[in-house]
Amino acid sequence: MGRRRASQLLAGYRQFLVGRPTPSSHEQSISGSYWKLNTWRPCCMFRVSVGTPQASNYLNLGKTYAIKQRSFGSAATDIRRNPAFSKLNADDISYFRTILGERNVVEDEDRLSAANVDWMRKYQGSSKLLLLPKSSQEVSKILHHCNSRKLAVVPQGGNTGLVGGSVPVHDEVIINLALMDKIVSLDKINGILVCEGGCILENLSSFLENEGFIMPLDLGAKGSCQIGGNISTNAGGLRFVRYGSLHGTILGLEVVLANGTILDMLGTLRKDNTGYDLKHLFIGSEGSLGIVTKVSILTPPKLMSMNLAFLACKDFTSCQKLLLEAKRALGGVLSAFEFMDRHSMDLVLSHLDGVRSPLPSSLYNFYILVETTGSDETYDKTKLEAFLLRSMEEGLILDGVVAQDINQSSSFWRIREGISEASVKVGAVYKYDLSLPVDQFYGIVEEMRNRLGEAAKVVGYGHLGDGNLHLNIMTTRYDSDILAQIEPYVYEWTSKHKGSISAEHGLGLMKANKIHYSKSPETVQLMADIKKLLDPNLILNPYKKILDLFAICN
Amino acid sequence: MGRRRASQLLAGYRQFLVGRPTPSSHEQSISGSYWKLNTWRPCCMFRVSVGTPQASNYLNLGKTYAIKQRSFGSAATDIRRNPAFSKLNADDISYFRTILGERNVVEDEDRLSAANVDWMRKYQGSSKLLLLPKSSQEVSKILHHCNSRKLAVVPQGGNTGLVGGSVPVHDEVIINLALMDKIVSLDKINGILVCEGGCILENLSSFLENEGFIMPLDLGAKGSCQIGGNISTNAGGLRFVRYGSLHGTILGLEVVLANGTILDMLGTLRKDNTGYDLKHLFIGSEGSLGIVTKVSILTPPKLMSMNLAFLACKDFTSCQKLLLEAKRALGGVLSAFEFMDRHSMDLVLSHLDGVRSPLPSSLYNFYILVETTGSDETYDKTKLEAFLLRSMEEGLILDGVVAQDINQSSSFWRIREGISEASVKVGAVYKYDLSLPVDQFYGIVEEMRNRLGEAAKVVGYGHLGDGNLHLNIMTTRYDSDILAQIEPYVYEWTSKHKGSISAEHGLGLMKANKIHYSKSPETVQLMADIKKLLDPNLILNPYKKILDLFAICN
Repeated sequence: MGRRRASQLLAGYRQFLVGRPTPSSHEQSISGSYWKLNTWRPCCMFRVSVGTPQASNYLNLGKTYAIKQRSFGSAATDIRRNPAFSKLNADDISYFRTILGERNVVEDEDRLSAANVDWMRKYQGSSKLLLLPKSSQEVSKILHHCNSRKLAVVPQGGNTGLVGGSVPVHDEVIINLALMDKIVSLDKINGILVCEGGCILENLSSFLENEGFIMPLDLGAKGSCQIGGNISTNAGGLRFVRYGSLHGTILGLEVVLANGTILDMLGTLRKDNTGYDLKHLFIGSEGSLGIVTKVSILTPPKLMSMNLAFLACKDFTSCQKLLLEAKRALGGVLSAFEFMDRHSMDLVLSHLDGVRSPLPSSLYNFYILVETTGSDETYDKTKLEAFLLRSMEEGLILDGVVAQDINQSSSFWRIREGISEASVKVGAVYKYDLSLPVDQFYGIVEEMRNRLGEAAKVVGYGHLGDGNLHLNIMTTRYDSDILAQIEPYVYEWTSKHKGSISAEHGLGLMKANKIHYSKSPETVQLMADIKKLLDPNLILNPYKKILDLFAICN
Repeated sequence: MGRRRASQLLAGYRQFLVGRPTPSSHEQSISGSYWKLNTWRPCCMFRVSVGTPQASNYLNLGKTYAIKQRSFGSAATDIRRNPAFSKLNADDISYFRTILGERNVVEDEDRLSAANVDWMRKYQGSSKLLLLPKSSQEVSKILHHCNSRKLAVVPQGGNTGLVGGSVPVHDEVIINLALMDKIVSLDKINGILVCEGGCILENLSSFLENEGFIMPLDLGAKGSCQIGGNISTNAGGLRFVRYGSLHGTILGLEVVLANGTILDMLGTLRKDNTGYDLKHLFIGSEGSLGIVTKVSILTPPKLMSMNLAFLACKDFTSCQKLLLEAKRALGGVLSAFEFMDRHSMDLVLSHLDGVRSPLPSSLYNFYILVETTGSDETYDKTKLEAFLLRSMEEGLILDGVVAQDINQSSSFWRIREGISEASVKVGAVYKYDLSLPVDQFYGIVEEMRNRLGEAAKVVGYGHLGDGNLHLNIMTTRYDSDILAQIEPYVYEWTSKHKGSISAEHGLGLMKANKIHYSKSPETVQLMADIKKLLDPNLILNPYKKILDLFAICN
C-alpha cells in the first residue's frame, strides 16, 4: 500500500458508537410458532438460509442422511426405531396432565407439526406430544415418568440448530422449556446472571444491556434460541474470539437427569475447587445427558465504542501474521477477525445486487475484517490506527479502509455475511464447518480446488480468529461423483491435521456417525460409558450425537 | 480526597516496564530435592510459610486432620488403610525396573523421605517407591500393572499443594512426571502451547516469554509446580481475574486412566463440538481420575506496560462499586484487584519491619490494589488516570497513590503479600480460603469479629476481583474453645451463602470430608459414580478429595 492509501485510510477513519449493524430485519415463520430470526449477522448458522428459498436444498447436499433435492422428508427413514422404547399411551398423557395442567400438554397437530421439523425443514420426526413444563420440578416429574416407562424424549429449545439435534427422529416426547424464561438474579458487581434455561438469548441480551452488561454469546438465531439450548450445543457465535468458550463463562448449571434427579450445580462463584466440575459434561452434550433448567453465567460489561477495518492481504501467510499482530496490539479490544479469500469476494460481487468492494481493486487474494470493541473511543481509535500503520509498513496489509459510520460498517459486514447467500445462487453447494490449526487453515481449500479442478468452485472463509473455517464447494447441480470426490476426503484430511469436523454446530443427527474423525476410540468409548451411567435407558435425545455411542451401548 | 491529593496522585504517576516485583528470592529445601520456591508473589499459597518457621504449626490449627502443635506427623493416622489394596512386593519392583530402567525406580530413603511429605511438613505418608516415567506409554504400563495388582498410587507433581493432595497417606506408589518435561509445540499465531505434564510452570513461562507469550496462570510456587499438577488442582493464581479459569484456557489433555488407557483428548483447537468435552473432568480432579501426561493450552500475548495503584476506600460498598467501575473502565487491561481491610493493614504495619503505608494516613477502613497490564504505555496510563479521577470525583476513593517505579510497586505489593506473614507473628492463626458472592464477601469477616469479640483478631483480605476471600483469625495460642466457635460455623455460613469452602486450593486430605458444604448430595453421588466408572479399584490418589466418595463407593 502506498503512502496515499495509508493516509486515505487513516484520514477516512471515524469512530462510531456501538450499535450492531442490522442492515435488514429477517423474520421467518414456520407454522406460525417458535420462529423468529431477527438479525442478520456474521454468524455461519443463519447467513445462508434466511430469506433464501434454496436453503433447505443446498444445505442437504453434503451430508450423509441427505434428503433428496428440495424434498421435505424425514432423516429418520435411515434409522431404525429403538424397539426398547415404549409407545405413548393414554395413561401417560393423563399423568402428564396431572403434572402440567391441560394447557401445557400439547397434542394439537399444528403445534406438533412445527415442533417436529427443524428450521431448515430438513429433519422431521413424528412426535405426538409436546410438553411445556413451568419448573425444574415439573421437568423432573416428566423425566422420572419417561425413564420408568422407557419413553424416549427430545429436549427442544428454540429449535434453531443446524445438525438435526433438536427435533424427534421418531415418536420421542418433545420437552420445551419456553415457559421457563425467568431471570432469577443479576449480581451487578460481577455481572453474574442467573436465569432459567428457557430464556431467549435476545431477551437476556436486552435485559443485560439495560443493566450495563452484555451476554458473552451472540448468535444470528438470538431471537429464537434458548440459553439452555445454547449451552447444550456449546454454541460459539460472534463473540467467541473476545470472550471465549461457554466452558469459561458458564459458572453454574441446574440440570435434570434422565431419571428425574435435579442436579444442583448452580454456583455463582468464579472459583470453586470442591470436587469434580460436573457442569462441563452438560455443556455441549446436546441434551443427551440431561436437560439444562437453570444457568449461571459471567457477563462482561457493555462497551461503548466500535471500529471496523476492511483489509486486503497478498497471501495467507500475511493473514496469519496479521492475526498474530492484531492479537498482540489489540488484545484487549479485538472483537472479530474474519477472513475470506478472493473467490469468496468474487462470488459476492458477482451474485449479490448492490454489493461493492470498499477497495478500489478487488483483485487481492485475501480479505480480512478486523473489529474492535472497547470502552474509550479515543484510545481504541488510536490503538487501531497504530496497528494498521505498523501492519502496512510491514507489508502485511496491501490496502484497507476503516468504516466511517455505521452504514459503512454494515456494508463491510454485508460482504462477509453475503458469501453463503451468494453461494446458493451458483446452484448446489456442499458446506463444511471445520476447526483447523491455523497453519493448516487454508490448506484444505487449496487441496479441494486442485482436486476438483474445473468441476467446482471452491471458496474458503470464516472466523480465522477462532480457527473456524467455512468451506463451500459449489457446482451447478448436485452430483454424486463430485460428492464422492469430496467425502470422506474432507473429513479424513481434517482428521489427519488434527482438526474438528464440527467447529460449532455439534454432531446432532447429521454427523452422528462421524465422531471418530475427531475423537479417539478410547474417548468415544468413555463418552458411551458416561452416557450409560447418566441415562441407562438411553431415553434422552436418542439416535443423534451419540449414534455411535448408541451402537456401543447396545 | 481533596484536589491536592488528586493532583499529587496523578503528578506522581509514572509508567514502568513490566518486570514482576520480586523483592527477595526465597528458596526452601527439604531433604535437598524437589523443593524450590523462588518467587514471593501476591499468591495466597506461599506467602505465609516461606521463610517462617511457624508455618507448619499455624497452618494446621484450623483443620480437621490437625497435627498437634509443631509436630511432624502423619495425617494418615486418622485414616484406615484400605485393606483392598495390595502391598508392594519384589516382583512389582522388578517389573517396574524392566519398564523404567533401574535409575527411575527409586527406593532411596532420602528421596522417598522428601516425596512422602508435603512442603508444609504437615502430611506424611510411608511410600516405599517413587517411579519416574519418561513417557505416556510408561505411565500407562505402570498404571495398568498397579490396577491389575490393586496397588494404590499417588500422582505427584511439584508437591506444592496446601491441602495434602499430593503426598501418600499410607504406602501408595508415588508417580512423579519430573522427567516428562518436554515442550512439544508452540503455534506462534494463536499462542497454543503443547507440552508434557511434568513441565515446571516457570520453565514454560520463560520459554513463552522469549516467544512473546505468557502463561495464563501464575503462582508463587511456579519454580516447583508442574503444569500437570496445576491442571489437576485447577489452580487459580494471580492472573485469574484477567485470563479466567483453566477450564477456559486448556484446549486439550492427554490423560492416562487408572487401567492404563491413554486418553487422547489433546486437541489444539479453540472450537470442537464433537461429543462430550471430557477433558474438563480431569481439570480439578486432583489426580483421582487419571494422570495428566500432556497439555494443550491457549497462552495470551506478552504485554509490555504495567501500572499499580494503592487506594483507600471508606466502606466495603465503595470497594464493590470500585470493582464494578474498574471492570467497566479497565476491562481490557485490569490484571489484579486485591482487597484488604484496615485490620490487615494494621497487622502488617505493626509486625513487619520496614513496611510503611504509602498514604499519609493509615486510618482508612479498606484498601485496594489495582494493577493494569496492557500493550501500550500511553493509553494504559491515560485509561488508569481517567478511571482514578472519575472514582475520586464519585467519592469511591478517599485517597490513593500510583506507583512511580518498580521499587514503589514492590513496596505496595509487599503490604498485600505481608498479611499472612504478619499473621503468624501474633501467635496461632486459623486460616480459611473461601469463595463468596461479592455482596456477601465481607459479611463473614464482620460476623466472626462480632462472634469472637476480644478473644481473637480477625482480618479479611484477598482477590476481590475473583470473589476469593482469605479469612485469618488470630489468637495468642491455639485454643479448642476458639476453634469450636469458628468451626463448623464458618463452613455453615459459607454454605448458607452459596459460597465455596475451597476457592482455589482443592479439597485434598484437609477438606475431604467437607465437600457437602459446597456440593449437593446428588452432585456428590454423581462424582462417586464417575470415580467408580473411571477407577473401579479406587487406586488413584485414595483417601483424599474423595473421602466421602470413597465411603459411598464402599
